[in-house]
Amino acid sequence: MVCSLRRDISLCRTLSPHLSFSLSFSLSLSLSTSTTMQSSDSGNLGRALCIITGASRGFGRTAAREISQLVKPGSALVLVARSGDDLRALQTELAESEAGRAGMVVQCVVADLGLMEGLESVIKSAKEVFSEDIDHVCLVNNAASLGDVSRYTRSFTNMAEVDSYLSLNVSSSLCLTASVLQAFPQRPGLRRTVVNISSLCALQPFSSWVLYCTGKAARDMMFKVLAEEEPDVRVLSYAPDMHLVARSKTADPNVRKSLSDGFSQGQVLTCEASCAKLMKLLLEDKYTSGAHIDVYDI
Amino acid sequence: MVCSLRRDISLCRTLSPHLSFSLSFSLSLSLSTSTTMQSSDSGNLGRALCIITGASRGFGRTAAREISQLVKPGSALVLVARSGDDLRALQTELAESEAGRAGMVVQCVVADLGLMEGLESVIKSAKEVFSEDIDHVCLVNNAASLGDVSRYTRSFTNMAEVDSYLSLNVSSSLCLTASVLQAFPQRPGLRRTVVNISSLCALQPFSSWVLYCTGKAARDMMFKVLAEEEPDVRVLSYAPDMHLVARSKTADPNVRKSLSDGFSQGQVLTCEASCAKLMKLLLEDKYTSGAHIDVYDI
Repeated sequence: MVCSLRRDISLCRTLSPHLSFSLSFSLSLSLSTSTTMQSSDSGNLGRALCIITGASRGFGRTAAREISQLVKPGSALVLVARSGDDLRALQTELAESEAGRAGMVVQCVVADLGLMEGLESVIKSAKEVFSEDIDHVCLVNNAASLGDVSRYTRSFTNMAEVDSYLSLNVSSSLCLTASVLQAFPQRPGLRRTVVNISSLCALQPFSSWVLYCTGKAARDMMFKVLAEEEPDVRVLSYAPDMHLVARSKTADPNVRKSLSDGFSQGQVLTCEASCAKLMKLLLEDKYTSGAHIDVYDI
Repeated sequence: MVCSLRRDISLCRTLSPHLSFSLSFSLSLSLSTSTTMQSSDSGNLGRALCIITGASRGFGRTAAREISQLVKPGSALVLVARSGDDLRALQTELAESEAGRAGMVVQCVVADLGLMEGLESVIKSAKEVFSEDIDHVCLVNNAASLGDVSRYTRSFTNMAEVDSYLSLNVSSSLCLTASVLQAFPQRPGLRRTVVNISSLCALQPFSSWVLYCTGKAARDMMFKVLAEEEPDVRVLSYAPDMHLVARSKTADPNVRKSLSDGFSQGQVLTCEASCAKLMKLLLEDKYTSGAHIDVYDI
């Protein structure tokens, strides 16, 4: 909590005139989630089918590695990305790991999630590796793009560009999530978890990041609605550290400086540290379904 | 403020388990906006070019009527909708009004804002009716669709359906806003205002309303980013009463009952009352740019 407030103050001083709003919002969110926690740490994710999108690099790749160490024998990973080479390298690495040698199935799906065919191939692969003794289906909606951050909102006059961004970043995660929930419906003994890899940008506007902020805010709300509708599904919007998207040509000089200063001064978490906190949340399984939880809130 | 809290409590009791979050969020927003207010009531909107989308009926139609009574002679209204008949009836009515007889120009644009051609025809018309002595350009992004509320999130597996919804409700308002800002750039003596007709659904999830909530949350964030980027542009996300979208086949029985109970018990505001409060905000011009303000906060 202290970390989160400190971080928001520092970001807001540089980036935003809406200081009072951001602080009170962060505070109320944290209080809300902490007061609803219960204790049920199991130490593993069960005999799981885990589908991870954007798995070829960065946070998705790290999540695949960490999840593979937390599932029980008989589990299966479905790794999705557009880049086949990176994905197959990860598949080989995981197959040679302790979990892989113990029989964990690792399936690669090289697909463009902006296309229906891409979604359908993920579902097809997930059904192929599913077995009746799997007790946990976990979808990590990680695939996302940053959008063009070198331009301001006033330059986005081309609908095809915005449509394409929203399709890849919002529609595809909605339709993939819906498809997974339909493919693996509620039944006794089956846990279902849906993770939305979110961002501070879902809550706070950043100059010159209009597509990214808009897409992340849309996704957060979409998963909040899902949590309302499906009480048996555990839904989490998790925001890793901002450095994960910091290597960019941000148009706004204040935002660019704030990101690069944080990076050069070592104030940002590694991908592994950000991911470890997500694993902690998933293992403890105490978060309020639908909540947005920032890496600095943990 | 009291109204807003009462309303949220009542809605949350019926609809949402996230009571503490909703209350603290509403409270912090209201405090944030009220503390930044300054006094500058001018009594009119100036010699204005006002572009209103979704103007053929409901809130947009009422907004066109009310705005026409608040602009100075020499103003122009550009009314946009897909329905030409309703739009032309409104044009005739406004032309025969006091403002119309005093020379206010009323231009109709029958267009589908889901298409680039539609956006372009709005900009073309706006440029045609613009004159150098206009001192205020005001865009009211009202056009929106509810989406299919008869189904739950898990049923949205068709990307084309979600893409189409986001294109009409998010992309088009971003691209139209950007196009208007480019067509009428910052210059001394020219006020520029952008209104986003928002909803409580931008802040709070409602079961079976996934497209509407997602689109409204996306729009709110988009306009927050715009406010960060363009300090000279006044940006307002205004949420009228929920009854404006209440006549629907909502799948969730609790949400449906809550909406119809409020409507039948006369607890909802009329379109005119909701719109009058927006006019008050625009005339006073004291809101924090980028803020989301609910009709019950005023």
